[in-house]
Amino acid sequence: MLIAKEARSPPQSPRCISIISVPSIVYETLSVDTKNLRFESRLEVPLSWEDPDLSWNTSVYHHDMVVLPVSKIWTPELHVTNGVQTTIKHSNKDLLVHSNGTIEHMVIMNTVVGCEVNLYNYPFASDFCAIALNVWAISGCGMFLDFGNVSTTSANRGDWLTEEVELNAKGGRDDRNYLWVLLKMRSENPFLSLVLPSILIILADVGSFALPLGESKRIPFKVKLVLSFIMFLNILKDLLPGGGQCSPIIRKHFCFCLVILVLSTLQSMVLTRLAKCGTLWPCSLSKSKDSLLKDTDNEEESKSDIKASEEEKNTALQKVVKFLNKMDAQDQKNAIHHRFANKVDLICFCIYLTVLIVYSFIILYFSFGSQCEINHLEFWH
Amino acid sequence: MLIAKEARSPPQSPRCISIISVPSIVYETLSVDTKNLRFESRLEVPLSWEDPDLSWNTSVYHHDMVVLPVSKIWTPELHVTNGVQTTIKHSNKDLLVHSNGTIEHMVIMNTVVGCEVNLYNYPFASDFCAIALNVWAISGCGMFLDFGNVSTTSANRGDWLTEEVELNAKGGRDDRNYLWVLLKMRSENPFLSLVLPSILIILADVGSFALPLGESKRIPFKVKLVLSFIMFLNILKDLLPGGGQCSPIIRKHFCFCLVILVLSTLQSMVLTRLAKCGTLWPCSLSKSKDSLLKDTDNEEESKSDIKASEEEKNTALQKVVKFLNKMDAQDQKNAIHHRFANKVDLICFCIYLTVLIVYSFIILYFSFGSQCEINHLEFWH
Amino acid sequence: MLIAKEARSPPQSPRCISIISVPSIVYETLSVDTKNLRFESRLEVPLSWEDPDLSWNTSVYHHDMVVLPVSKIWTPELHVTNGVQTTIKHSNKDLLVHSNGTIEHMVIMNTVVGCEVNLYNYPFASDFCAIALNVWAISGCGMFLDFGNVSTTSANRGDWLTEEVELNAKGGRDDRNYLWVLLKMRSENPFLSLVLPSILIILADVGSFALPLGESKRIPFKVKLVLSFIMFLNILKDLLPGGGQCSPIIRKHFCFCLVILVLSTLQSMVLTRLAKCGTLWPCSLSKSKDSLLKDTDNEEESKSDIKASEEEKNTALQKVVKFLNKMDAQDQKNAIHHRFANKVDLICFCIYLTVLIVYSFIILYFSFGSQCEINHLEFWH
Amino acid sequence: MLIAKEARSPPQSPRCISIISVPSIVYETLSVDTKNLRFESRLEVPLSWEDPDLSWNTSVYHHDMVVLPVSKIWTPELHVTNGVQTTIKHSNKDLLVHSNGTIEHMVIMNTVVGCEVNLYNYPFASDFCAIALNVWAISGCGMFLDFGNVSTTSANRGDWLTEEVELNAKGGRDDRNYLWVLLKMRSENPFLSLVLPSILIILADVGSFALPLGESKRIPFKVKLVLSFIMFLNILKDLLPGGGQCSPIIRKHFCFCLVILVLSTLQSMVLTRLAKCGTLWPCSLSKSKDSLLKDTDNEEESKSDIKASEEEKNTALQKVVKFLNKMDAQDQKNAIHHRFANKVDLICFCIYLTVLIVYSFIILYFSFGSQCEINHLEFWH
Amino acid sequence: MLIAKEARSPPQSPRCISIISVPSIVYETLSVDTKNLRFESRLEVPLSWEDPDLSWNTSVYHHDMVVLPVSKIWTPELHVTNGVQTTIKHSNKDLLVHSNGTIEHMVIMNTVVGCEVNLYNYPFASDFCAIALNVWAISGCGMFLDFGNVSTTSANRGDWLTEEVELNAKGGRDDRNYLWVLLKMRSENPFLSLVLPSILIILADVGSFALPLGESKRIPFKVKLVLSFIMFLNILKDLLPGGGQCSPIIRKHFCFCLVILVLSTLQSMVLTRLAKCGTLWPCSLSKSKDSLLKDTDNEEESKSDIKASEEEKNTALQKVVKFLNKMDAQDQKNAIHHRFANKVDLICFCIYLTVLIVYSFIILYFSFGSQCEINHLEFWH
Repeated sequence: MLIAKEARSPPQSPRCISIISVPSIVYETLSVDTKNLRFESRLEVPLSWEDPDLSWNTSVYHHDMVVLPVSKIWTPELHVTNGVQTTIKHSNKDLLVHSNGTIEHMVIMNTVVGCEVNLYNYPFASDFCAIALNVWAISGCGMFLDFGNVSTTSANRGDWLTEEVELNAKGGRDDRNYLWVLLKMRSENPFLSLVLPSILIILADVGSFALPLGESKRIPFKVKLVLSFIMFLNILKDLLPGGGQCSPIIRKHFCFCLVILVLSTLQSMVLTRLAKCGTLWPCSLSKSKDSLLKDTDNEEESKSDIKASEEEKNTALQKVVKFLNKMDAQDQKNAIHHRFANKVDLICFCIYLTVLIVYSFIILYFSFGSQCEINHLEFWH
Repeated sequence: MLIAKEARSPPQSPRCISIISVPSIVYETLSVDTKNLRFESRLEVPLSWEDPDLSWNTSVYHHDMVVLPVSKIWTPELHVTNGVQTTIKHSNKDLLVHSNGTIEHMVIMNTVVGCEVNLYNYPFASDFCAIALNVWAISGCGMFLDFGNVSTTSANRGDWLTEEVELNAKGGRDDRNYLWVLLKMRSENPFLSLVLPSILIILADVGSFALPLGESKRIPFKVKLVLSFIMFLNILKDLLPGGGQCSPIIRKHFCFCLVILVLSTLQSMVLTRLAKCGTLWPCSLSKSKDSLLKDTDNEEESKSDIKASEEEKNTALQKVVKFLNKMDAQDQKNAIHHRFANKVDLICFCIYLTVLIVYSFIILYFSFGSQCEINHLEFWH
Repeated sequence: MLIAKEARSPPQSPRCISIISVPSIVYETLSVDTKNLRFESRLEVPLSWEDPDLSWNTSVYHHDMVVLPVSKIWTPELHVTNGVQTTIKHSNKDLLVHSNGTIEHMVIMNTVVGCEVNLYNYPFASDFCAIALNVWAISGCGMFLDFGNVSTTSANRGDWLTEEVELNAKGGRDDRNYLWVLLKMRSENPFLSLVLPSILIILADVGSFALPLGESKRIPFKVKLVLSFIMFLNILKDLLPGGGQCSPIIRKHFCFCLVILVLSTLQSMVLTRLAKCGTLWPCSLSKSKDSLLKDTDNEEESKSDIKASEEEKNTALQKVVKFLNKMDAQDQKNAIHHRFANKVDLICFCIYLTVLIVYSFIILYFSFGSQCEINHLEFWH
Repeated sequence: MLIAKEARSPPQSPRCISIISVPSIVYETLSVDTKNLRFESRLEVPLSWEDPDLSWNTSVYHHDMVVLPVSKIWTPELHVTNGVQTTIKHSNKDLLVHSNGTIEHMVIMNTVVGCEVNLYNYPFASDFCAIALNVWAISGCGMFLDFGNVSTTSANRGDWLTEEVELNAKGGRDDRNYLWVLLKMRSENPFLSLVLPSILIILADVGSFALPLGESKRIPFKVKLVLSFIMFLNILKDLLPGGGQCSPIIRKHFCFCLVILVLSTLQSMVLTRLAKCGTLWPCSLSKSKDSLLKDTDNEEESKSDIKASEEEKNTALQKVVKFLNKMDAQDQKNAIHHRFANKVDLICFCIYLTVLIVYSFIILYFSFGSQCEINHLEFWH
Repeated sequence: MLIAKEARSPPQSPRCISIISVPSIVYETLSVDTKNLRFESRLEVPLSWEDPDLSWNTSVYHHDMVVLPVSKIWTPELHVTNGVQTTIKHSNKDLLVHSNGTIEHMVIMNTVVGCEVNLYNYPFASDFCAIALNVWAISGCGMFLDFGNVSTTSANRGDWLTEEVELNAKGGRDDRNYLWVLLKMRSENPFLSLVLPSILIILADVGSFALPLGESKRIPFKVKLVLSFIMFLNILKDLLPGGGQCSPIIRKHFCFCLVILVLSTLQSMVLTRLAKCGTLWPCSLSKSKDSLLKDTDNEEESKSDIKASEEEKNTALQKVVKFLNKMDAQDQKNAIHHRFANKVDLICFCIYLTVLIVYSFIILYFSFGSQCEINHLEFWH
C-alpha cells in the first residue's frame, strides 16, 4: 500500500506558488570571526507545507498519517542570501505526511554569514548581524515563507552573547526576510589581554620619570618598555580584529602608545647627554678638564726648582687643595648641568602627562561619543 | 531467492510507533575543547529492531538468517539533540536479518556537543556533559529507544579522563534520553604551565625586596618580571579556556598578579627616588650642594690675600677638612634619606606580604569553597 | 502531466554548439592569501539557455512555465581555467523552464585562483587578478558564453578592497573570457606592524648615539635593539608575503635594517675599547700603571733610611702629591683616549646618518619609481 | 554478454561464512601525533575472495576473466576496530573476475588509530601500536580473514621510524587480528630543541656562581635565566607530548629545572643582601655609620674653641685620619660581611652541585631503568 | 536517437587490454611541505581512447561526433602509485565521442606525493621528485598509457621553482611510468631568516671580546646572545625541515652555534672571576685586605700614647701615606690579576677565532662538497 504511494512521489510544486510555513526557529550562534568578519550560526527550522499530490482518502487507506523517506519526496530548499557557506541537513531521514497532504519536516542549517561587525570601540563591541533567510522565487514563480516566532538557545556561551534575535523583512517585501541578531562581545578577555597591559606599560613609563636621570637606570628601563611593547603588539596581532569600514580605534591607540614610548625614550637619551655634557654637541668636557690639568702640571714644573722646605710643604699642600678645588669645580659644573637637565626633564614630564590626559579624553570621546554606522543589508542593492 | 527478497525492502516503519533496542553503548571521549566549550565523542551503538515486512517463513526459505546490504533496507536514524555536528556511519555495509524480522545493526557516531564545562576552578576542573541521544518522533508517530548498559573505552587517554558514563532521561520522559558523562581534567599539565610560573614570578618579586634599594638592582629586576609576565600572559592566552557563565577564576588570578607586579615596581621606583632625594619632588639635592660649594669658594677668595705661611698652611689643611666635612654631611644626608626610604620599604614589604597572604586565602576559598552551577540540559526548555 | 515531461529530460546538447547567456555576475572577493599567492572569490552566475527538447505547446499544456528539479535536467558547467580549486553549487534544487524551452538557472561558484599578486612595494600593493571563466568547448563542439554586466558586493570588507571588476576576452577570442579584478591592499595594518616598528627601531638606534660611550649604557641598548629586531623578524615571518617573481622590497629593507644595526653595535663595541685603552690591541693600560706604581714603591723604599723629621714629613706629603699626580696622569691619559674615541664616534655617526638618508631615498625610489611587471594571463600560452 | 552478467551482480554472501584472502599488505606510517596520542597509517590491502554467483562456464563465454565495475559488485569491507577515523577507497573502479568466481581487488585504507604511545622517556621513545584489522562477523555469520605477509614502505621517512610490522591475533582468535607496528622516534630533533637548551641553561646557572656576589652581575643574570626558561617552556608547550598513563618524565625534568633556577636566584638575592648588610633584616648599616659621623661632628664642635695653631693643625690632620679610619672600619665591616656571604655562597654552590649530580643519576635511572607498561589491546575487553 | 545510444553505454573494457593515449600533460607544483616531506601538484591530463561499443555508422546517424554525459560512460582511472592522497575530477560533465568510437576527455588530478626531498644543504636545496602515474593493470589484463609531451605552468610561483618536468619509465617497463620533477628552492627567504641571524649573532659574539672584562658589560651581553639564540631556535623550529635520511646540515650548524655561544659565555664568566680574585677558588681578597687593616689599627693604638706633637703630626701623615700605599698595593694586585686575565682572554679569543674559521671551512665543505643520495623510486621494490 505504502510502496505504491511512494512510487508516485517525485518532487514538484504544483501551482508555481506555494507557501512554506515556518512555525518556530531555534537560533544558536556558533562563532564570530572578527578577523574575517564572518559569523557562523545554526538554525533549527521546522517546515510545513501542503502537497496536494500526497493527500489521500482516509476511507480508502485507513491511516491518518504516513511516514515517508525524505529522499523520495520534494522538499523546499532554504537560502541564506548573504551566506558565504551554508549547509542544510535534514534533521531526519523520514518525514510525516498527513492525509490532507500537509507535510511536516525539519531542517538544520549551519550558515556562515559575512557580517561586517562594527568593531569601532573594539573590546566593548556590540552590533547587529543579518541572516537573510529566503526560498527560491523567480519571475513570479516560487515559494514564500510564513514565519512564526524565533527563539535562541545557548545564547551566552562563548565570546559573543546573543542578546536578541528577531525576524524582519526589508521594505516589507515578503521575499526579503532576515533574522536580525543582536550580538554583544564579552569584553573581559580582550580587555585583560589587550587594553590592560597597554595601560600598565604607559603607567610604568610615567613612573620611570621618578628614576634619576644620569645613572644608567632610566634608559634601559624605557628601552625595555618600548621593545616589549613592539613584541606585545606583534604577538597580539593575531588577536586584533580585521579592518573593514569601521577600523577599531584600539589600533590607533596602540599606534599612539608605541610612538609616545619611543619619544619618551629619545627624550631620556638626549637628557642623559645633557646631564653629562651640558650640551647636545659632542662633550667638550674632557678637553676643558684636560687643559686644567695641563696648567697644573706646568705650574708644578715651573715651581719645582724652588727648594725652600716650608715653601715646598706649602706647595705640596696647595697642590692637594688645588686638586680638591678642581674636583669641586668639576662637581659644580656637573651639578649645573644636572640641575639644568633635571629642569628640562620636569618640563618634559609635565608635557608628557598633559598629552596623556588629553589623549585619554580624546580616546574616550571617540570610542563612546561618536559612532560608525554600517549598512548590514547592503547585499540587497 | 535472496534477490527477490531484496526487491521488496524499501524503508518503512509500519505502525507509526516502533521500538529500537540499544543493548549496549561503547562510549569514548575524543577531545574536549575548552576554548569553544565543545567536546567530541565517539559512540558505538548496536541497534536491533523488528521489521515485520522482512520476516519470512523458514519452511519456504531454509535459512534462519540472511545478510542484506544496508543501503536497501530502512534503518533508524539517531539524533544528538544538542549536537553541533554529528556524523553517523554504518559500521558495516551489510546487516543481519533474522527470519522473524529482527534486524541487527551497528552504527558509529562521531558527535561534537556544545557542553559548557564548568571551568570555574580551571586546572582542577571536573564536570558533567550531556549527550542527548534520541530518535525521530513527532506528533505521536515515531520511534522510542530501549537502552541497555553503557561502557567506556580509552577512558584515561588524553587530557580529560572519562570517569563515569550513565544513561538518564530528563523528567522520566522516554524521548529525552541523554548520556551523562563525568569528565575530569588532568590538571598536571596546565598547573605546570599556568599556575606554577605565576607563583614563581610572584615569589621572585617577594624575594626582590631583599635587593638593596638604591643600586640599580631592584628596578630592572622588577621591570623584567612585569614584562615577562605580560609576555607570559600573551603566549598563554591561547591556553586559557573561554568565557561562558562560569568564567575561570584563574583569569582573575592572572589579572591580580599583573596589577600587583606593576604596583610593586612603581613602589620601588618611587622609593628609589626617595632614597636619592629625600622627597618625591625633583631633587633639590644638587642645588644645596652647589650653594655649599659656592660659599666655600667665596670664603677661599676672601681669605686669599692673607699671606701668613702658617695661616696659609692651616687654611689649606682646613680646606681639606672642610671638603671632607662636606662629604660627610652629604653622606649623612644621604644616609638619612636612605634610612627613611628603607623604613618605608619595610612597611611596603609588610603590606605586600599581607596582601599576598590574604589574597591566597581568598583565592583558595573561591576556587574550592564556592561553586558555580550550570544547567547542562538547558537546550530542552 | 509534469511527471510525463520529466521522464524525457535526460541531459543533452543538441547541435554541438549552444550559447549560454550570463545576464549579470555578482562578484565578491572572499580572501587573498599573499603567502601562497592565491585568492578566493565567490561568483553568483545566473545562466539562461535554450533547450528545444524541453519546449512544449502551451495549447496542450496550459502553463507558461514549469518548475523542474535540477537533477533531472542537463545544465551547463562553467570552468575556471586558472582555478586551483573550484566548487560550483546550484543555487536551488529547482529551475524554471519556459514553454519555448528557455531555461533560467543560477549557480554559485567558490573559486580559488592562483594569482601572482605584485607585492613589490608590499604594504602599498595593488594589482590585477584574472579569473578565466569559460565553458567546455573542444574541436568546434561545445558552448559559448554571452556575458552581461558584472557587479561587486561587499567590496571593501577584509584586508583587500575590490576596486573594480570587468569582463575581458584575451585576444578577442570568445573562449578566453576572464574577469579582470583590481585589488588594492588596506595598507594600514601591515604598515603599523611591519614598517613602523622597523623605522622606530632605527630611530632609537640613531638616538642611542646620544648616550655616552664608555659607561655601559650604549652597548646593552644596541644589543637589545639588534636582538629585538631578530625576534621581530622571526615573529613577523608569517606575515611576510611569499616570493614569486616580484619579491617584495620590504624584505630587502628588513635585511638592510638588520645589517646596519649589527654594524652600529660592533662600531660601538670597538669604540668602547678604544675609549678605554686607546688602542684596539689588548689594553697595555694596566701594565704602564703598574710600572709607575712600582717606581714609586722603589723610590719610597730607597728613601726610607733618611730619618730627618722634616724631610720625612715632606716626603710623606710629596708621596701624597705623587699619588695625586699619578691619578691626574691616568685621568689625562683616559681623557685623551676618550676625546679620540668621541671624535671617531662623531665621524661614525655622520657616516651612519648619511647612509640612512641615502638609503631612504633609494628605497623610496625603488618602491615608487620602478615597477615590476607580471603577466597574469600566462596560463594561456 | 557482459551486460547480461552484470545485471545479476547484486552484493551477497552465500553461506553466511566466507573467507577473504589477503595475500600481502603494504604498510606505511603517515604521521604520529604525540599530543592526542593518535597515529595515522596507510594500508594497501589486496583482497581476493570467491563468489560462486559470479562464476561462469568458459565453454559458454569464451573468456577466462572479465573486468567488472566495482560499484556493481559486492565487496567485503574491512574494519579497524580501534580506529578513530578510517577511510577506505577502492584502488580502482574496476575489478577482475575469474571464470571460477574468484575476484581480485585492492583497497587503500587511511586509518587514524588511537594508540597510547609510551612517551615515558620522551625524546628516546619507542613503542608498539596495534591496528586491529577485521571484517564484519556477527552471531556466527560473517567473514574471516586469511592473511599473508606484511611489508612496509617509506619506513624511515618523517619523525617516526617504522621498525617492524607483523601480524598477530589476540588469544589466537581469528576475529581479533591486528597489525603490531614497532615505532621508534627520531630523537635528534626534540633532543636539540628540548633537552639540550635545558641542560645549557642549567650549566649557565652553575657557571654564574663564578660571578662575584655583590656587584649587580649575578642577579640579573640569574633572573634572565629563570624568565627565559619560563618563556622557553611556554613556547615548547606545543611540542611537549600529551599526558596519558605514562606521562613523559621530561615534564618533571622541566619542572625540576624551573624550581631549581628560581631557588638559586632567591639564594643569590638573599646572599646579596647578606653581603651588603651582614643580616637579612633591613640594613642597620646606615644608622651606625650615621651615629659615628655625628660623634665626630660633636667632637669637632667641642674642640673648635681651642685656638692653638699647632693644635688646630694637628686637629685638622687628626680629622683627616679619623675620616680615613672610619672608611677603613666601614671597609672592614663590609669585608667581614662579604667574607661571610662568600662562605655561605660556597656552601650553597656545593649543595647545588650535589643536588644536580644526584638529580642526574635519578633522572637517568628513571628514564632508562624503570619502565611504564601500557596495554595496547585494551579496546578488546 | 541519442537517448537510445546512451541506454547501451555501461562501463566496460572489451579485450582486457586497452591503450589510453595521453597527448599532453600540463603540470603545476602547488606546494612543497618540507616538514612532512610531501609535495602537492596538479595535473591536467587529457585522455583519449577507443571504445568500439560506442562507434556508430555515420550513414545511419548523421553526426560525426556526439556529446555524452561522463556519468553514463566508462572512463579510465589514473593512479599515482606513490600518492598519499589523490583526487581526480573530470574537467567537464560531458565528453566527446567520435563516430569511430574514439573518446576525448580530460581529467584534473590533485595529488599529494610523499617525496623525501634532499634537504641536506637546506636553504640551497634542489632535488627530484617522482610522481608515478599509471593505470590499473593486473594479471595481464588492464590498460597501458601512451604518453605525449609534458609542459609546466606557473613554474616559478611560490617557494619552490619547478625547473624541469620529464616523463620516464623505470626499467623501461610500460607499467612503471613516472613524472620526474626537478624542484629548486628559492633560498632567499630561509637564508634571511635562518642563516643570516645565526651568522650575525656569532659575529656579535666575536665582537663582544672587544668589551673590557671586568666591568659588567661583557657577561650580560653574552648571556643575552645565548638566550636570544635559544628563543630564536625555538621560534624557528617550525621552519626547520623534518628529518628523513638526509637530515639538513643546518640543524647541526645551529647546534654548534648554541654550544659555542654557551662555552664563550662560561669562559667570560670564569675570566671575570679570575680578573677579580686572581684565582678560580672563592676570593681570598677580602681576607688579606682585612688583615692589613687590622695591622694598621693595632699600630695606631700602640703608638697612641706617644704625645710628641711633631711625632703625632708625622704619624698622622704617615697613616695617610700608609692608607694610600695600601690602596696602591690593592690596585697593583688587581692590575696583576687583570693583566693575567686579559692575557688568558686574548688566548681564548685566538682559539675561538681559529675554531670558527676551521668550522666555516668544514661546514662549507660538507654542504657543497659531499652529497647525500636518496632513492626516490624505492616504493617500487
